[in-house]
Amino acid sequence: MSSQEQIHNLIQNYRQAVMAKNVDDVMALYADDVVSFDAVKALQFKGKAAYRAHWEECMKMCPGPHIFEFHELTIETSQEIAFAHWLAHCGGTNEKGETQACWMRVSACYRQVGGQWLIAHEHWSAPFDMTSGATLFDLKP
Amino acid sequence: MSSQEQIHNLIQNYRQAVMAKNVDDVMALYADDVVSFDAVKALQFKGKAAYRAHWEECMKMCPGPHIFEFHELTIETSQEIAFAHWLAHCGGTNEKGETQACWMRVSACYRQVGGQWLIAHEHWSAPFDMTSGATLFDLKP
Repeated sequence: MSSQEQIHNLIQNYRQAVMAKNVDDVMALYADDVVSFDAVKALQFKGKAAYRAHWEECMKMCPGPHIFEFHELTIETSQEIAFAHWLAHCGGTNEKGETQACWMRVSACYRQVGGQWLIAHEHWSAPFDMTSGATLFDLKP
Repeated sequence: MSSQEQIHNLIQNYRQAVMAKNVDDVMALYADDVVSFDAVKALQFKGKAAYRAHWEECMKMCPGPHIFEFHELTIETSQEIAFAHWLAHCGGTNEKGETQACWMRVSACYRQVGGQWLIAHEHWSAPFDMTSGATLFDLKP
């Protein structure tokens, strides 16, 4: 399997594990020294323990069923490292039964360790309006 | 010079060119097919022409003198591609002469083309508050 295919599979596994709300499966994909810039709450999460606590909190807060689709995926690889970026359509159903969704941007950087690709860095975000400081949840690709 | 040193120099040149508001020097660092997830305004900017127009608009809107410091820089490289992430302390002086600054997160992915490293992807953002949707400009590392 090429590095491209391996990273593609990793991203599909990541997506499935998040949708299944399986924190163990999600965390198995990260390097121990992962540095994550998540979309919410803090500037950064350093290391697996800190990021696991954040993932657990996010999964508790997220309503279901989950919309979690990845679009415009680009992957570039070498033997040792790789990177990818995509747009994620994320959402769920609120207490009134209404579907709420928005588009987010994702960048991910990977490192191969002992034949296994791991996420060394990831960055999730939504852009903001420069004048109001409000997050732009209504942008579409 | 090692790939690590080359990427480190590229990031220093990028920082200097942005502080000097030299759009030509900034744009010389990007690959033609750059995909950028900037902190403001749009989900993504695809290709150099679109991103140049955005940089020009941002530089017009930004007050001076500029605070633009890079901290906690991490770089990983291979022969063909590289990635880096850091925290940027960004700001300036408003019309009242008050200094305004915030911390942003930056991820950048690089590709070596004909012996020259170029930025293939970059991602700037600030996190938001999940309840209010407001961008969190007061977070500190």
